[in-house]
Amino acid sequence: MPEIVSVVGSPDSGKTTLIEKLVPILMEKGLRVVVIKHHAHGDFDFDEEGKDSWKLYQAGADVVVASPFKITLIRKSKDIYDLDYVVERYLKDYDLVLTEGFNRHGKPRIVVLRPGDDISRFKIGKILAIVCERDVESYPTYRLTDEDVFRIAELIFQMVS
Amino acid sequence: MPEIVSVVGSPDSGKTTLIEKLVPILMEKGLRVVVIKHHAHGDFDFDEEGKDSWKLYQAGADVVVASPFKITLIRKSKDIYDLDYVVERYLKDYDLVLTEGFNRHGKPRIVVLRPGDDISRFKIGKILAIVCERDVESYPTYRLTDEDVFRIAELIFQMVS
Repeated sequence: MPEIVSVVGSPDSGKTTLIEKLVPILMEKGLRVVVIKHHAHGDFDFDEEGKDSWKLYQAGADVVVASPFKITLIRKSKDIYDLDYVVERYLKDYDLVLTEGFNRHGKPRIVVLRPGDDISRFKIGKILAIVCERDVESYPTYRLTDEDVFRIAELIFQMVS
Repeated sequence: MPEIVSVVGSPDSGKTTLIEKLVPILMEKGLRVVVIKHHAHGDFDFDEEGKDSWKLYQAGADVVVASPFKITLIRKSKDIYDLDYVVERYLKDYDLVLTEGFNRHGKPRIVVLRPGDDISRFKIGKILAIVCERDVESYPTYRLTDEDVFRIAELIFQMVS
């Protein structure tokens, strides 16, 4: 089963940027990586209205769109409330699952903070690293520089392998 | 394992319309239905450029976007060339897989034709029904009317249950 690491933090703190930088480094190291992004509000559109795949989804079916390059599976489901189940059901063959958000699921985490943000609400899982422009309490604190992101990737890699 | 039924035919013959009409009828009958749509050309965009999920995919990771209503899994893969593998790997818990296209995979099929279209290239799997405005050879031919679509749904339902 893959390891799960959550990247949590306040909105706009830089979670996506951090993950964007981590992914190629971790893949370079040979890990099969999948990112789970939480879309909390509303029934997001995966496709524009009017497109065939949208029509088929609106008709009530789950939909797979397949091209020579990728497979997209869109499934009506409330599974997301059980992260472990999602990983076990769909993502078993990855080495690493990075979640963006999913703070309350209590997984080992990297906390991305803006200076002044309160860290306390992210203390519900083992904190591997803090990313912040200023040092935070007694935690190892990193910046969003390439050098520091490389160090964070190394931490994650150690954990997985 | 689910039954697989392909809806094949010339471009713009009405395949999507037929599937759109079939899905609610089949689901009403209690079937769990998934539709596989073939996207043959290019590396289609599941999302607009600039969106976070797009960024994460561009960074090289596979991506899951999860909302309270649905799960979208986007996976770089050439699996699509092996339809049976896709079904076995991802879609085992459905009753029925409807494919739009996938003519050459030889699954039992409904052929949607425009008057004058040549049926011969679709004769590479058991033909359950023809949908066409004019009768075609010796096959059971249906129209795209609600009544006829209901009859086709019944054929499929008999096959699955």
